[in-house]
Amino acid sequence: MTDTLANADSETPNHQTVRVDLGRRSYDIVIGRDVLETAGIRIAALKPGARAAIITDETVGKLHLDRFRDILNAAGIQSVALTIPAGEASKRFEMFERLCDEVLAARMERGDIVLALGGGVVGDLSGFVAASVRRGMSFIQVPTTLLAQVDSSVGGKTGINSRHGKNLIGAFYQPDLVLCDTSILDTLPLRDFRAGYAEVAKYGLLGDADFFSWLESNWKAVFAGGTERDEAVARSCQAKADVVAEDEQEAGRRALLNLGHTFGHALESAVAYETERLVHGEGVAIGMMLAHEFSRRLDLLPQEGVDRVEHHLLDVGLPTKISDIPGQMPPAETLMDIIAQDKKVSRGNLTFILTRGIGSAFVEKGVDPILVRDFLTEKLAS
Amino acid sequence: MTDTLANADSETPNHQTVRVDLGRRSYDIVIGRDVLETAGIRIAALKPGARAAIITDETVGKLHLDRFRDILNAAGIQSVALTIPAGEASKRFEMFERLCDEVLAARMERGDIVLALGGGVVGDLSGFVAASVRRGMSFIQVPTTLLAQVDSSVGGKTGINSRHGKNLIGAFYQPDLVLCDTSILDTLPLRDFRAGYAEVAKYGLLGDADFFSWLESNWKAVFAGGTERDEAVARSCQAKADVVAEDEQEAGRRALLNLGHTFGHALESAVAYETERLVHGEGVAIGMMLAHEFSRRLDLLPQEGVDRVEHHLLDVGLPTKISDIPGQMPPAETLMDIIAQDKKVSRGNLTFILTRGIGSAFVEKGVDPILVRDFLTEKLAS
Repeated sequence: MTDTLANADSETPNHQTVRVDLGRRSYDIVIGRDVLETAGIRIAALKPGARAAIITDETVGKLHLDRFRDILNAAGIQSVALTIPAGEASKRFEMFERLCDEVLAARMERGDIVLALGGGVVGDLSGFVAASVRRGMSFIQVPTTLLAQVDSSVGGKTGINSRHGKNLIGAFYQPDLVLCDTSILDTLPLRDFRAGYAEVAKYGLLGDADFFSWLESNWKAVFAGGTERDEAVARSCQAKADVVAEDEQEAGRRALLNLGHTFGHALESAVAYETERLVHGEGVAIGMMLAHEFSRRLDLLPQEGVDRVEHHLLDVGLPTKISDIPGQMPPAETLMDIIAQDKKVSRGNLTFILTRGIGSAFVEKGVDPILVRDFLTEKLAS
Repeated sequence: MTDTLANADSETPNHQTVRVDLGRRSYDIVIGRDVLETAGIRIAALKPGARAAIITDETVGKLHLDRFRDILNAAGIQSVALTIPAGEASKRFEMFERLCDEVLAARMERGDIVLALGGGVVGDLSGFVAASVRRGMSFIQVPTTLLAQVDSSVGGKTGINSRHGKNLIGAFYQPDLVLCDTSILDTLPLRDFRAGYAEVAKYGLLGDADFFSWLESNWKAVFAGGTERDEAVARSCQAKADVVAEDEQEAGRRALLNLGHTFGHALESAVAYETERLVHGEGVAIGMMLAHEFSRRLDLLPQEGVDRVEHHLLDVGLPTKISDIPGQMPPAETLMDIIAQDKKVSRGNLTFILTRGIGSAFVEKGVDPILVRDFLTEKLAS
């Protein structure tokens, strides 16, 4: 096995590995162009003799499933493929039940693998299936969107949506391996790439001013697909891995990763998750702007900081204002209701991620809801 | 808080505490008559300010819900009650979905409590709900059957059934507190008490010959409800807690707890979980007899050991033979298929818990399926 893996690594010298350090649940994220080609030997080395239930969606399946199964097959890994409809609507109970049932029908055992081939929806849903079937099977992720590579595939948050809100049912469950093939992103629609990029920028904004500066200079190369893209994915994964290793269950510091997300989720919910109007990363982009503007309102950072964020998000083509969302938005009171039902609420106080400048975000647990409502009222009118 | 709890303990000197040692997920099991009366102050001390979603079934609810809510209320704990139909059929997806939804509809937050008031079905289902809503709420168990007190409430196994088998979907999730009120068992039907007692006897048989001898002498007092009952519950919980602390995820030694369960589950499945014919503990009793007889067949223990087990199970009124189950049983091949789909299968080899004598069970991973089939064929004919 060691020989085979050594070969894989010597043939692919440009692949980077980020280690997520969680004790005996630690795992590697392998990042680079054509990482997919090494999937078979890497998985066979990690889980000798295991079979795989590949969960993918119709869109990704058409593009990558046959090739991927060939790669697994060449390494002696038997697989079954379970395909779900593309889109957020698949993150629901019926689909969770169907997939659990199909994995069991394929006679998968506890040591076998649930393998997510797709974006965040496929990853979140598959992870909850992997966590739940036989109280925990092996789980491997092959994220095929930038968003999934830098966000959903790191940190073990899995789950489905409820009619009460997004991601309200799920598990903390760590994968055994994540393979981020950055060349797969070449076929990603520009809008989806941009949306994922919002999360990349977030890692700079929340804790790494140097990375944000680097992105200001190099974002075009990241979009074009050079080694800068690999670098951006690796630094993002490393940033998230560092936070998650410190705080796996989101008791404290991990909340920083929610920069832009409380506002962003409220906006997504307000448009009923209609992706024609708003996708997650766009909500995060607007949410990050709102978090910086709200922090400015509280005199926490200078206007120059807010301007730099806006300038960069506009450069890459991301929305920055609530009014960038097509169609009518609900009043501030409705957004506040959504925020109150958000899982980042603790006993009635609002928790927000605020910032003292680029790379200096912090968790503020006692934010006055009145201030937020007034701020949103004003932003909705502008 | 300390004062209040000290009062609780000084007023109730006969309550015993078993600590389940799992690092920062450690928790206490409090055992004794009228422990329920102390539930409010204990929970308020452990989770100040938290609200509770009490999940119970119609049978238990009628007997204990009003009093229990009064006890919580007196300690300032707000609660909502969610009632499910009694019986194994409630351990299914639709009920899991309904309860998750109702807990969210009650606006429960991550620090609030899912509280299971009932037997194994309520506990298993509620635990999976607690594990899944907001990716993990607080979880407290008040088991109301002997089986739940000595088995389901220790060890963190939660879950629901699938059409492919029992407990195939779920999570490992630890409670924050377990309250075993042994006086509640006074109202338990005799058949259910006996079924739970099979698991009590199991702890003796798997690893504690002295405890089994003690049960042979004291089982009548355990049934009658004296301090011997508290002692039996506490020793059982301690035995399970010791095993679970060593091996939370069932990688090795924890499998010992399955003594009698591979056969027992197969029998339960063969009668389609019709509890008129067979309840879990009865399946375990017959399964333990089969495990001892099969071990005898392999010359692992003397006939005297088998006879002692049979004698004790007959004494307390438990079934010991497959033919004790009313109605027709399927052929051995069908039982073997069920065993093969059981989660204790590893890559085609059968894992069984065998024994070298009273208190000397061990895990055997390479059992020849042919031997088991022939043994079952013979037992089905006798």
